Amino acid sequence: MSAGQIDILVSEVGPRDGLQNVKRVMPTAIKHRWIAALAAAGLREIEVGSFVSPKLLPQMADTDEVAREARKIDGLTVLALAPNVKGAERGIAAGVHKLNFPVSASRAHSMANIRMTPEEAVEQVRQACQLRNAPPVEVGISTAFGCTIEGEVSEDWVMQLAAKLAAAGATSVGLSDSTGMANPAQVSRVLEHLAPRFPNTEWTLHTHDTRAMAIPNILAAMEMGVSHLDASIGGLGGCPFAPGASGNVCTEDLVHCLDAMGIETGIDLDALIETSKRVQEIVGRVLPGQIVKAGKWTRRYPLPDGVRERIPARA
Amino acid sequence: MSAGQIDILVSEVGPRDGLQNVKRVMPTAIKHRWIAALAAAGLREIEVGSFVSPKLLPQMADTDEVAREARKIDGLTVLALAPNVKGAERGIAAGVHKLNFPVSASRAHSMANIRMTPEEAVEQVRQACQLRNAPPVEVGISTAFGCTIEGEVSEDWVMQLAAKLAAAGATSVGLSDSTGMANPAQVSRVLEHLAPRFPNTEWTLHTHDTRAMAIPNILAAMEMGVSHLDASIGGLGGCPFAPGASGNVCTEDLVHCLDAMGIETGIDLDALIETSKRVQEIVGRVLPGQIVKAGKWTRRYPLPDGVRERIPARA
Repeated sequence: MSAGQIDILVSEVGPRDGLQNVKRVMPTAIKHRWIAALAAAGLREIEVGSFVSPKLLPQMADTDEVAREARKIDGLTVLALAPNVKGAERGIAAGVHKLNFPVSASRAHSMANIRMTPEEAVEQVRQACQLRNAPPVEVGISTAFGCTIEGEVSEDWVMQLAAKLAAAGATSVGLSDSTGMANPAQVSRVLEHLAPRFPNTEWTLHTHDTRAMAIPNILAAMEMGVSHLDASIGGLGGCPFAPGASGNVCTEDLVHCLDAMGIETGIDLDALIETSKRVQEIVGRVLPGQIVKAGKWTRRYPLPDGVRERIPARA
Repeated sequence: MSAGQIDILVSEVGPRDGLQNVKRVMPTAIKHRWIAALAAAGLREIEVGSFVSPKLLPQMADTDEVAREARKIDGLTVLALAPNVKGAERGIAAGVHKLNFPVSASRAHSMANIRMTPEEAVEQVRQACQLRNAPPVEVGISTAFGCTIEGEVSEDWVMQLAAKLAAAGATSVGLSDSTGMANPAQVSRVLEHLAPRFPNTEWTLHTHDTRAMAIPNILAAMEMGVSHLDASIGGLGGCPFAPGASGNVCTEDLVHCLDAMGIETGIDLDALIETSKRVQEIVGRVLPGQIVKAGKWTRRYPLPDGVRERIPARA
């Protein structure tokens, strides 16, 4: 893994957000190898799973073991999702470096997703932050840009939630476009309002490419100073509401775009592309990522037959 | 068709650039209905076909008839591609409002694509502009951001070409990312250099979403003042070099993004989505467009069963 200076931290969420939208359960040994390959490609932070009830998400039942194994990888920040104090306790026991709590801005989404009100979820964050040996707690504000059930989510309410979360002890707050509804103008506007009010909070952006706006939203957030981005290899995942729609922004497509723009992520794009191809084989379907199909922008092709001899020298 | 004020002109290239990458020949009557549906959805400019040799592109053999029929649609600007003077003469006979000449910045691409050097292609533009009854001639500079055969294309050479084209009589110059290699930083940089030197030239952008950067590139160009954008319904088309890769930027995904950002295109997005679904049925495969799959950002879903009764009032 490269230890050089980076401009943008790309945090891989495939083993959590990607996989939780895939029905088939991935064997634990394959998860280990996958996470090791991601880390070897230069990913410095990986969300390895979710400490939820195995009854709800059987794909995540082995998160304790996956996290313990990932902890052995030198230099890797191991992150896992916990929806409540019980999950946080499992995370602490497994030795994760960071916990990610989902707190929905939408009440309906909150109840549907974690069966708690937003206020109850904030209270879980507060209690988790006070646990003995608690690691830093990041919060992703789900449906921060709108909810497919409730509709518009008020910026004022997102602001209030962010304040409650900071007070509860969260070290960083992610704006999560869980439903793929955000647009670049909105991302700029929301961050322009929010970020200056919380100078001590690190803002992150979690995007879904449901409506082809993930990379535009990311570039808008980067212009507002956000330098921590979630992504999922291959674009693995999906949206439970929109069958056939894309999942999280695709890690290698994002890294490719940043690379081409001269923005340093510390990630070896070729190794990442190879890993994405293997993930595609493992899950057994074509993933939305485009770089795996098209190759990098530096890819070259030979001249078609019989053309070279017809090219005259430049006039 | 709406006649209101618009911020951005989206020019539909599906019947030309989209279709020329589809092997199956679309019947002329279906092309007529398709173009009429696009115009009814509010598209104000449509590139209806290509005046090339039917031997090279049998899909485009009926362009004369398609153009004549499209001319009957009130308020529609009918555009067609012509690679040479002979094609321009066919276009004039068919009564197109505008001709689109492709001129490659890359010599290798130019030879492979139209079997002429860039200088010879410029000469064809000059002669076409002098034809009796010649309509305005737009030029798309192919491979303006790089070539998959030659590699990097120098900005200086693109600038020289643009000067030659303006001198030859071209009324507008399009920067064409034919190979899907451009990135947003590059688009900004190129336009920042070029646009001020040609104050009388209208700049357009022609994008391919080969590497998931089409909408980011468009937003970068819009920030530099470009307000004329090519797009292809459903993302129809492809890249002859990259099997499985996306085609032109998808019209409805682009219009959806602009709509969500509050930017007026004059296009009825719902009608456009319906047209895209029909095109998908006609070509018989799933197209890359994402809005057709996911629905608009305003799409709402009911609460999952049993959730509503558990939601307490806001504290």
